[in-house]
Amino acid sequence: MSINRLSLNTATAKNLDLPTALAAAAEHGYEAVGLWRDRVAETGVERTAQLVKQAGLRVSALCRGGFMTASEPDAIAWALSDNKAAIDEAAGLGTSELVMVVGGLPAASDFGGPAIPDGDRDLGAARQRVIDRVGDLVGYAQSRGVRLALEPMHPIFAADRGVLSTLGQCLDIADAFDQGAVGVVVDTYHVWWDPQLASQVERAGRAGQISSYQVSDWVLPLDLDTLNSRGFMGDGYIDFATITSLVEQTGYTGDIEVEIFNRKIWDLPTDELLSTVAERYSALVLPYLR
Amino acid sequence: MSINRLSLNTATAKNLDLPTALAAAAEHGYEAVGLWRDRVAETGVERTAQLVKQAGLRVSALCRGGFMTASEPDAIAWALSDNKAAIDEAAGLGTSELVMVVGGLPAASDFGGPAIPDGDRDLGAARQRVIDRVGDLVGYAQSRGVRLALEPMHPIFAADRGVLSTLGQCLDIADAFDQGAVGVVVDTYHVWWDPQLASQVERAGRAGQISSYQVSDWVLPLDLDTLNSRGFMGDGYIDFATITSLVEQTGYTGDIEVEIFNRKIWDLPTDELLSTVAERYSALVLPYLR
Repeated sequence: MSINRLSLNTATAKNLDLPTALAAAAEHGYEAVGLWRDRVAETGVERTAQLVKQAGLRVSALCRGGFMTASEPDAIAWALSDNKAAIDEAAGLGTSELVMVVGGLPAASDFGGPAIPDGDRDLGAARQRVIDRVGDLVGYAQSRGVRLALEPMHPIFAADRGVLSTLGQCLDIADAFDQGAVGVVVDTYHVWWDPQLASQVERAGRAGQISSYQVSDWVLPLDLDTLNSRGFMGDGYIDFATITSLVEQTGYTGDIEVEIFNRKIWDLPTDELLSTVAERYSALVLPYLR
Repeated sequence: MSINRLSLNTATAKNLDLPTALAAAAEHGYEAVGLWRDRVAETGVERTAQLVKQAGLRVSALCRGGFMTASEPDAIAWALSDNKAAIDEAAGLGTSELVMVVGGLPAASDFGGPAIPDGDRDLGAARQRVIDRVGDLVGYAQSRGVRLALEPMHPIFAADRGVLSTLGQCLDIADAFDQGAVGVVVDTYHVWWDPQLASQVERAGRAGQISSYQVSDWVLPLDLDTLNSRGFMGDGYIDFATITSLVEQTGYTGDIEVEIFNRKIWDLPTDELLSTVAERYSALVLPYLR
């Protein structure tokens, strides 16, 4: 008996290799997997696609393209090349959705010392470069049947990971391109606080722009490693009933990925990890699907 | 020689008692102080007002009212009573601006365990209660010549400290009351990431709704104690030239408070602390004032 639209993002089971993760997901009734490129690279695109099919699963999305805020020509060329490879991989895996984490301020990795850093702090310019790079890539993505899925990141990550901070901002960008060419990701961890969440989810759904719905919880205290500070649904502050209903009311029928970055959760025994995710999903998300 | 519009928020010099902080601020050329209620309470409102005047300074704002998201009648009554006291203190100190940190989800302090918590996760309802409490208080504040200054908090604090997350959201609330009765705080730490920052600062300025402009920097890595993770201007990612120019172009002529919560900065020798703040302000903020 499978659990309707539940997808295991491989980042939630980071300690498992792909065959193990797929077997465990199938055994626990998951219907899909959200794949990360590093995990796919270990097995190869073609073999990964075979393994997913053999496990009776489908691919909900590929994570991730992006990291394209650089301003130097070489770095721009590398970003375009790497994103084209990601587009090819998505096509090869049979998913139409490539999740894009667009990157932070370009010199972020050089920061942190006590002296005034020389980094580029022009957030507006970094955001414009994201738009420019999406423009560079969108034709290629369309030719491969892949949609660039812009992921708004929680503002805690604006400096070093993602300069797109709200769903509305991502939709403004998506609207500037051919309809269907650019989508958005609704990840509860990133968007739960947004005062415009209801109206922007509705807007995205009306235009068929929701590429992916991802769930995990905002827990406190944050881990010092903020990137890996997410929790199981139900352990934190996010109202999954409300947000799931918002997404569902738009007519979104895609899979729902559970994507939890958390070292303690990664270290759980496989059965406990996958069954806890399935239980929380069944209790807190599933009741709000049609 | 004084430094135009530079105000020392007492939270930046948390280890100093009020007389010491005032003397140091005056000596280093600051023109104003932003006072916190706990520091004022140590000296008393009347005596504090005298000391500020004797030091040749002015009060830029009082921090802070707020914490009014509770839903139980007793807690609501307490919040109203406490905020009226804060309004009285602001009036007694001769400042028209009371900074309001509105509070997080009501059960936030009960969260954190591994079990599914029973806290109230209804963010929309908590936000509505803020509007209701502002409505309860606004008449009293007006009668005392005090403006309630809503402070949007960085979304990192939405769960446990401030459910108002953007300038636009605060302005929507302010617009529902008499003109001049409710203002907003522009604190670079909280708003620097906002894609709508330029348009919302312009909107606030046009209506004369900017109660306070506060500066500090977003530094990484975050401290585990996220509340106290701010840095000196220039040590992080924030573009003070752009944001200061936005605020200044609205015609804002008020003081500019440096408000840095950071234990390492608090522990610096007083002269080093105050001179570093003054130097960074002079290099990164002052050149963008008219």
